[in-house]
Amino acid sequence: MKQLLLIGIGPGDPRQITLQAIEALRRAQVFFVLDKGLIGRELLRTRHAMLDQHRADGNYRLVQVADPRRDQCAAHYQRAVEDWHEQRAALYARLLRDELKEGETGAFLLWGEPGLYDSTLRILDRVRQRGLQLTLEVIPGISSVQALAAKHQIPLNRVGEPLTILPGRRMPDQSAIDNVVVMLDGDCHFAHLEDPALFIYWGAYLGSSDELLIAGPLQHVKARILQVRERARREKGWIMDTYLLRRVS
Amino acid sequence: MKQLLLIGIGPGDPRQITLQAIEALRRAQVFFVLDKGLIGRELLRTRHAMLDQHRADGNYRLVQVADPRRDQCAAHYQRAVEDWHEQRAALYARLLRDELKEGETGAFLLWGEPGLYDSTLRILDRVRQRGLQLTLEVIPGISSVQALAAKHQIPLNRVGEPLTILPGRRMPDQSAIDNVVVMLDGDCHFAHLEDPALFIYWGAYLGSSDELLIAGPLQHVKARILQVRERARREKGWIMDTYLLRRVS
Ligand SMILES: C[S@@+](CC[C@H](N)C(=O)[O-])C[C@H]1O[C@@H](n2cnc3c(N)ncnc32)[C@H](O)[C@@H]1O
Ligand SMILES: C[S@@+](CC[C@H](N)C(=O)[O-])C[C@H]1O[C@@H](n2cnc3c(N)ncnc32)[C@H](O)[C@@H]1O
Repeated sequence: MKQLLLIGIGPGDPRQITLQAIEALRRAQVFFVLDKGLIGRELLRTRHAMLDQHRADGNYRLVQVADPRRDQCAAHYQRAVEDWHEQRAALYARLLRDELKEGETGAFLLWGEPGLYDSTLRILDRVRQRGLQLTLEVIPGISSVQALAAKHQIPLNRVGEPLTILPGRRMPDQSAIDNVVVMLDGDCHFAHLEDPALFIYWGAYLGSSDELLIAGPLQHVKARILQVRERARREKGWIMDTYLLRRVS
Repeated sequence: MKQLLLIGIGPGDPRQITLQAIEALRRAQVFFVLDKGLIGRELLRTRHAMLDQHRADGNYRLVQVADPRRDQCAAHYQRAVEDWHEQRAALYARLLRDELKEGETGAFLLWGEPGLYDSTLRILDRVRQRGLQLTLEVIPGISSVQALAAKHQIPLNRVGEPLTILPGRRMPDQSAIDNVVVMLDGDCHFAHLEDPALFIYWGAYLGSSDELLIAGPLQHVKARILQVRERARREKGWIMDTYLLRRVS
């Protein structure tokens, strides 16, 4: 059997990795790394630094390939994602067949928490449906949501109340925003909200030396967030940000 | 100034602690530990084992006190919680005044993730409102939600969709259950759901040697979960469980 480890490595700070993840890093003979353009290049550096730190032995193979890109203009989101997952499944199946030998252990280093807005588990389901036999192990990691709350020193939920985490594209469907964490929001949906009772806790590049944090009543700080965000995005060429919106009464 | 570290230590598995948490553990001179009855006693053992492992120097003070109990029978939930937080704020204020010297660093070892259904941050807000000066630092930890997903090898969210996390007592208010993680559910609300399209992924004592996992279509496995859960609760005297409910179409 081939073994595959999905290792959550946290949202950027190299100290936000668990002992369990380090142990897993030490068990793998092969690391699969997908290159995803500019953003990916920087996240890749973090992964390489982790390997240098925890696998100083250098006794492993690194398999690095370009990740297929999702069609960003496709009219139908679910179908575009479907196509993209199918392409990645074909790629992963080939890599796992050709680059991982029977009895060996491979690993993916996954950003943040492997269970949160990460498609690797779903793609591996497809790979197994194509007939590839694999034993899996998933190792949780600190998510960017947790890094955000820790830096702002706030609880994610209010007493006895629910917490909703959603991708930016689902913001327009939200009937009421009470306590919501938004990820993957390239469109800054918070900027269109006019409710004066909303607070925002915003963070970008969390855990890195470029980290940005802004918090306050949404109507007071929203222009500043847009400005700071746009400047950073232009300077670095990419941005990764998350925020919590909370209604205060 | 007095410094206080709120350290997330993960949901039970001693390997699910981050390097950042270990570093923080090594910086503290005083550890505050609240005893919360039977459950607490076992969670306490985990904390002591962590101190033994990462602070073998033994060069720290341990301040252990009985946590005030919340009135479980109070008619008004929010008010009972309010009273309880006020009592704890008084206790914490006294401890931080008497047991932590100026310039020293104290620490709370918090179960799982400090931002998820943990009242310490809120209570410290009250302590500061009472005039105590404190510098805080929050260190994220792996939550039981993440341990649950990792063990069942499932993503927490479906593609492009929201994830809701809520305490059991909010289950009756949920108009539609689509993709929900339930914590703090002593009443097994899942047992009352009749929807045949629901799947459940259940886990108890996650990360410990007593870990229990059951997954399947809710209507098929619900009786088994109730039985296994009740037997475990009787044998150990307490239980800590979490589950994800997901509607499949
Ligand atoms: C594809 S999702 C992956 C999330 C990841 N699995 C996690 O647990 O954080 C990418 C989104 O996560 C958020 N994110 C990830 N890392 C971040 C960081 N260091 N700072 C701010 N946001 C981050 C952003 O919202 C980004 O659009
Ligand atoms: C007061 S909340 C604290 C949650 C904690 N901060 C976390 O991040 O997991 C306690 C609830 O967390 C869940 N929980 C915590 N640890 C658990 C474990 N090891 N196994 C299963 N559920 C757990 C249970 O639902 C329990 O009722």
